[in-house]
Amino acid sequence: MNKTNIIAEPGKQEIIITRLFDAPREQIFKVITDPINIPNWWGPRYLTTKVEKMEVKPGGMWRYLQYDKQGNEFAFHGFYHQISAPERLVYTFEFEGMSGHVLLATIKLENSNGKTLYTDLAVFQTIEDRDGMLQSGMEEGANETMERLEELVIRK
Amino acid sequence: MNKTNIIAEPGKQEIIITRLFDAPREQIFKVITDPINIPNWWGPRYLTTKVEKMEVKPGGMWRYLQYDKQGNEFAFHGFYHQISAPERLVYTFEFEGMSGHVLLATIKLENSNGKTLYTDLAVFQTIEDRDGMLQSGMEEGANETMERLEELVIRK
Repeated sequence: MNKTNIIAEPGKQEIIITRLFDAPREQIFKVITDPINIPNWWGPRYLTTKVEKMEVKPGGMWRYLQYDKQGNEFAFHGFYHQISAPERLVYTFEFEGMSGHVLLATIKLENSNGKTLYTDLAVFQTIEDRDGMLQSGMEEGANETMERLEELVIRK
Repeated sequence: MNKTNIIAEPGKQEIIITRLFDAPREQIFKVITDPINIPNWWGPRYLTTKVEKMEVKPGGMWRYLQYDKQGNEFAFHGFYHQISAPERLVYTFEFEGMSGHVLLATIKLENSNGKTLYTDLAVFQTIEDRDGMLQSGMEEGANETMERLEELVIRK
């Protein structure tokens, strides 16, 4: 089972994604903070993702480029605020196609009877930004991202 | 008049502070991004503020120390996401006394008939964090901060 839950309450400026992984959080933390893994889980399968930069330290920049089959490029970047292995990552996120619209992401990894509860909290500058993200097909992308991460974590 | 407005709607995880300044936004942007000015406007008057670090560039860290009359120290830090003179600053903010609780701040400076509308949007990870900030006496501090900034901008 281990399905992804996506919560986006009306009138709030946040999206909360949770999933239970059958793996210790140390392992998940290692997978998600290693640039080599990003192309294999970050985003939906039909896009190709390249890591241009991923400096996993406070103030470090990350920048990923995504390409569709037609060769269109989509760029994303942000800066890490906090990296606390194996439980917490806080960073900013901006889709460069919507320059100036920034969100604050918090990834939390909690022990849960030998499994790990993964929580991804995204808070947006406005409700409109949050709703725009939902309308961009983000839910499907998040489901695939979590499935891909699970495959990767189990394979390791 | 030029009074400070503080908006914190129930059920939302944001605080919006606005104030109209009788000065061009270039001047305000310059004042707020220069470390030398921070001790003269950032925070309430009864605290002494020192800039430990203020690297005004994307990914750059800022860290301020505040002291009360008894010598108690309060530390704050964050990282800049965006610096677009003279109109926009986006950065993270953490009070180290509440470690792990981070907010995303966006300062916007808009022309308004020769004056400048200053907007400070703070979005919190949770409503509880937002409400905790309000209960900490933040409103009084914000009013004084805006008064001090006005004095400084007019003096320049």
